[in-house]
Amino acid sequence: MRGLQVDALNPSILKVQYAVRGELAIKAEEYRERLKEANHGLPFDKVISSNIGNPQQKGLDQAPITFNRQVAALMEWPALAELAPNAFPKDIIARAKELQHEIGSLGAYSHSQGVPFIRQNVAKFIEKRDGYPSNPNHIFLTGGASAGVSLLISTLISSPKSGILIPIPQYPLYTATLASFSGVPIPYHLDEVSEWATSPRDIDGALQKALDDGIEPKALVIINPGNPTGALLDEATMEHVVRLCEQHNLVLLADEVYQANLHRPTTHPFTSFKKIVRQLNSRVPLVSFHSISKGVTGECGRRGGYFECANIRDDVLALLYKMVSVGLCPPLSGQVGVDCMVRPPKEGEESYALWKKETDATHAVLAARTKLMAERLNQLPGVSCVDSAGALYLYPKLTIPDQAAAAALAAGKQPDEFYALQLLDETGICVVPGSGFGQKDGEAHYRLTCLCPGVEEYVGALEAFHLGFMKRYGGL
Amino acid sequence: MRGLQVDALNPSILKVQYAVRGELAIKAEEYRERLKEANHGLPFDKVISSNIGNPQQKGLDQAPITFNRQVAALMEWPALAELAPNAFPKDIIARAKELQHEIGSLGAYSHSQGVPFIRQNVAKFIEKRDGYPSNPNHIFLTGGASAGVSLLISTLISSPKSGILIPIPQYPLYTATLASFSGVPIPYHLDEVSEWATSPRDIDGALQKALDDGIEPKALVIINPGNPTGALLDEATMEHVVRLCEQHNLVLLADEVYQANLHRPTTHPFTSFKKIVRQLNSRVPLVSFHSISKGVTGECGRRGGYFECANIRDDVLALLYKMVSVGLCPPLSGQVGVDCMVRPPKEGEESYALWKKETDATHAVLAARTKLMAERLNQLPGVSCVDSAGALYLYPKLTIPDQAAAAALAAGKQPDEFYALQLLDETGICVVPGSGFGQKDGEAHYRLTCLCPGVEEYVGALEAFHLGFMKRYGGL
Repeated sequence: MRGLQVDALNPSILKVQYAVRGELAIKAEEYRERLKEANHGLPFDKVISSNIGNPQQKGLDQAPITFNRQVAALMEWPALAELAPNAFPKDIIARAKELQHEIGSLGAYSHSQGVPFIRQNVAKFIEKRDGYPSNPNHIFLTGGASAGVSLLISTLISSPKSGILIPIPQYPLYTATLASFSGVPIPYHLDEVSEWATSPRDIDGALQKALDDGIEPKALVIINPGNPTGALLDEATMEHVVRLCEQHNLVLLADEVYQANLHRPTTHPFTSFKKIVRQLNSRVPLVSFHSISKGVTGECGRRGGYFECANIRDDVLALLYKMVSVGLCPPLSGQVGVDCMVRPPKEGEESYALWKKETDATHAVLAARTKLMAERLNQLPGVSCVDSAGALYLYPKLTIPDQAAAAALAAGKQPDEFYALQLLDETGICVVPGSGFGQKDGEAHYRLTCLCPGVEEYVGALEAFHLGFMKRYGGL
Repeated sequence: MRGLQVDALNPSILKVQYAVRGELAIKAEEYRERLKEANHGLPFDKVISSNIGNPQQKGLDQAPITFNRQVAALMEWPALAELAPNAFPKDIIARAKELQHEIGSLGAYSHSQGVPFIRQNVAKFIEKRDGYPSNPNHIFLTGGASAGVSLLISTLISSPKSGILIPIPQYPLYTATLASFSGVPIPYHLDEVSEWATSPRDIDGALQKALDDGIEPKALVIINPGNPTGALLDEATMEHVVRLCEQHNLVLLADEVYQANLHRPTTHPFTSFKKIVRQLNSRVPLVSFHSISKGVTGECGRRGGYFECANIRDDVLALLYKMVSVGLCPPLSGQVGVDCMVRPPKEGEESYALWKKETDATHAVLAARTKLMAERLNQLPGVSCVDSAGALYLYPKLTIPDQAAAAALAAGKQPDEFYALQLLDETGICVVPGSGFGQKDGEAHYRLTCLCPGVEEYVGALEAFHLGFMKRYGGL
């Protein structure tokens, strides 16, 4: 027998690309293994995974919030409340008891849409955030936001001519998921010179082009705060976007997973699309995604998140329910994580002070580090970097010297891939080249996270590498 | 604007059917809510969810294994080892420290294929079980077995003419997933009169028919121990099946999630397909699935499991890796659960005695209850029930009286749906009609779990209902 050949497999899946964990990330893992050897021969002694927003990974400094983990530990083994009562603040024990009453065992399947009590708490969180009602029956708890995005895209793509508007640059989950369900990405560009602003006119232009090409636009993806850009949308733009979706009968998919990562909240606040849709009294179908993986929670490994549907018909909700029921239920550990995120300790409760201290510190460190990194990167020749107002990343633009571009071409690489591979080889720092997120022809960028501690050493290594690279290829 | 209409959505997703959480399950949830009211007016005081193998759900008696939860609690909040050292056996503290060293925080994304150390432990477990080597790089940890099944089916279906052989009756995950990726189910029937045996001749017949119909068979699904049948395959049959896959170049998808649920292991032991494939020195591509949701672990809510690939080419493995990386990683809580399942306490360790006691008790209770329920069901007029040798279910066959069949037709229901709806309405017991699993034309079955405590009361209610139903429709 000839065995299972790749060319016999789903052609849509063959086309999927996902750079965040692509060639560079795989090479970084190989280096990490090699570093365990005594004579590894590498010019660095640790690999720094700046390719992925993974705040709690080894070597980074964002510890889990104690409150979340105390609740989780008691949920795992409720007997601890009796065996070690003094190890836990009183409000934690009460919280865990309440959750146990509502959920039962973490080891049981829950309602496929998520534990009803937790969905009620999510609805209250949304109501408090926006000032408009939220219906727990329109909320689906998920295994991270990506599971929800995948569900929605798979449901919306009804033919190979179905398209979804995607920002460029974008988190490649969107193009990867679209490719796997044979949908067409309709790219619209964000404006780097205006701090990566979203332009309704550019969206409209992309829409018209798609219609001319015989594509049927189904939905519009907006990432706010932006990934990889860190940009925040203002309300006027958001209103334009909603009106555009109304005109073209588009579902608005609002990726709002970084809503709690705001570095300058006074000048660059977060407003949800749900609030705008309600303010405008719009009937645009909206699905907004949130996650426990980002923010100050940073609990990526639990796989928790939710999406809220607004203006979605009951028969469509029933269809979504049917599909999540095939997957049984989202992980209970993630669901409990969602509850902790939307219901943190209140002032006056025993856990409040520590929770406040920990979350304030995380916000402050991330904002300061982002600012400092952007400043230092902007001082480098051939680098310009929009100072991100939110999320976890910077997305500097590189002017790649002609000699480097020629060398990249000869090596069969995009110029920014070529740059990022050398950065990894020389420093152990793993970033994602801009070609993985999308950019205009001839441009070069890379995305790096602002999560790494020891910012002096880290930025110092980036600077030294960059200057060496520029010299090597005649750019200085 | 007209809003988002169902008929604009993915037609494949519209076609998906999944009875385990379908009309009956939804009605059961409504009854459960109604029972909270003082004057609920229902003829029962609790809903018994026998529709789903969910051992730890409220009202059932399979408690989590203490060992698993102690490890999990320490992983969630490692400070407990210092704050409450006496609450934990020494070997648990050592185990958690080892896992923390390998994993880091449960809140960080792991390797997309799962934590390497845990995959090594899975490989050792498989080697010990089968006596043949297992490669950790060919193992993918997953969020329950269903996530792995979905990945494999989505990868294998390359056109709307791609088919997958599915046993009838089957756990409807398979047909649901196939439908959502526009693949064709190729049904082969299990033989009820031979204790639901798998017949290679029937598989071959189904294959030939599919080929005549222009379908390209891609894979063969075998569920062993069977769901819903509880049947165990013997080695001779397994060898036949492997040879058949070789002849027809089929990937063998072995759903072995119930491998630890054996009620008569001496006469009906479990043998893995991996072992048979190696014994035969076969090159058939094999993917076998396991889960922490079943067995004595019963940790459905954690969403943990794995699949092992054998005879799968590296480029196909790379493709699977790419796709799991888009979903980032399986839940860490489930991964730790997998580690506990494949590495239980050893004799001599402090936790061993309790672990042994708990797991022995669960095995014994389930075996005794299954036997008793089968005996009692077989004594009912119009019921015959193969005494299940494994898994968590019975799948009794009903002879539905003609008057009941006519009443079902008039109500627009299948006869077994009609029966199951009345069972729920009268007793609060929720089962899944056989039409949800597939059966021969004119037959009627239902699946019920053997997880319910208070077996006298439970079987008594089933008996009383059945006799009443038969009388009502002239069957007695």
